[in-house]
Amino acid sequence: MIVDVAVTPVALQPTDAGRTIAVLDVLRATTTIVAALGNGARAVVPVEEPNEAVAHAERLGRASVLLGGERESVHIPGFDLDNSPRAYTRERVEGKTIVFTTTNGTRALRRAAEIATAVIIATLRNRTAVAHALLAGAGDVTLLCAGSNGDFSLEDFLGAGAIVAALRDRAPGLALGDSAFAALSAYTRHARALHAAIAQGTHARRLIRDGFAEDIAYCAEVDRIGIVPVLIGGTIAAQSA
Amino acid sequence: MIVDVAVTPVALQPTDAGRTIAVLDVLRATTTIVAALGNGARAVVPVEEPNEAVAHAERLGRASVLLGGERESVHIPGFDLDNSPRAYTRERVEGKTIVFTTTNGTRALRRAAEIATAVIIATLRNRTAVAHALLAGAGDVTLLCAGSNGDFSLEDFLGAGAIVAALRDRAPGLALGDSAFAALSAYTRHARALHAAIAQGTHARRLIRDGFAEDIAYCAEVDRIGIVPVLIGGTIAAQSA
Repeated sequence: MIVDVAVTPVALQPTDAGRTIAVLDVLRATTTIVAALGNGARAVVPVEEPNEAVAHAERLGRASVLLGGERESVHIPGFDLDNSPRAYTRERVEGKTIVFTTTNGTRALRRAAEIATAVIIATLRNRTAVAHALLAGAGDVTLLCAGSNGDFSLEDFLGAGAIVAALRDRAPGLALGDSAFAALSAYTRHARALHAAIAQGTHARRLIRDGFAEDIAYCAEVDRIGIVPVLIGGTIAAQSA
Repeated sequence: MIVDVAVTPVALQPTDAGRTIAVLDVLRATTTIVAALGNGARAVVPVEEPNEAVAHAERLGRASVLLGGERESVHIPGFDLDNSPRAYTRERVEGKTIVFTTTNGTRALRRAAEIATAVIIATLRNRTAVAHALLAGAGDVTLLCAGSNGDFSLEDFLGAGAIVAALRDRAPGLALGDSAFAALSAYTRHARALHAAIAQGTHARRLIRDGFAEDIAYCAEVDRIGIVPVLIGGTIAAQSA
């Protein structure tokens, strides 16, 4: 079993096709998806564009659906929820289908779905559950960082490193690609103060400026939930680990 | 002054244009270029293809030229030297122009030359000299990892982190991009055992298998030489730091 990290969707290699791909958008799309499903949302449907989200909600029946997401970290006019995971409370989301669009996360999910045999939604909060699911799958794995507009994102790289650490703890003989070894190294350097490290990233600093400091703390928490969302046929639903 | 790292040439961003770009191909192209110039080679001319190298050597006058480089780590038939920095001794290279072609390094140099205002050849061995030159330049900086056939290379990322560490030591207020912070983190994790970390990379393991273990040790040594080669008009020559 080989583990690689793609630091952005563009960094995916031909060897990543046919693998299980775990997608990370720590700030905040995958963390929000995990929060919604953890609080009883029936499913999350990622779509590329806001108008596509509205059309899809109409088809599903507006009463059972919430529209969620962001553009440039900001709430989309007419949407029920933004991209703050703390807004996806049980009161708001239980039993609902969330039609969801974000700047980077949904694009990474689509790219993964195009080439992977299985797509898993990964965060720091479900880190060990994801590691268990990947080890159970036994095949080669790529951890895909959503990144930020095609560029490297610190929090996604550290998140990938956290998953590598959990995999390595359970399977010491695992073959790490160069990028996985580097992500593990960077994560290990900051494992005891992960929140402080993530807060130094470009995206975190922008979110803090925009009033979302509590989201950073929430997204930087490790191993808080045991669900492993999977993307199948365009819809994300939870599997228990 | 901003510092970013591009983990491969494909990872270069629009914001990297117009900057000083320091190119790293730790195993082994940039280390070999630094070795050659440190041992008195007059200049190094990077070219894309072996037949181009031969044609260029004919134009320059074969007596004053050595042909150097590799394809897939292997000596090119008819060439004087391979891509082992330890082969570029003073006895072999003093006063000569080296026409040089490698799999990844020369491509990264060409890409840098297309978009940068200045191109510097960086390695672990001239790490602090490069940091001094970048700080003297005062403009924004991108550390470009040559990578391996378009993929992430551990030794180049750690080398970039080593340069970030030297920059940070001298300019604590430096603004680090996400990738620069991550590279610094990974380097810091392994700073006291850099050779051992680099030896875990894909490229190092292949070189060790092919009998070049001593090259890994040589390329992993930090701060052994004070020259800063620069690429100007297609030719690399040494500047003293």
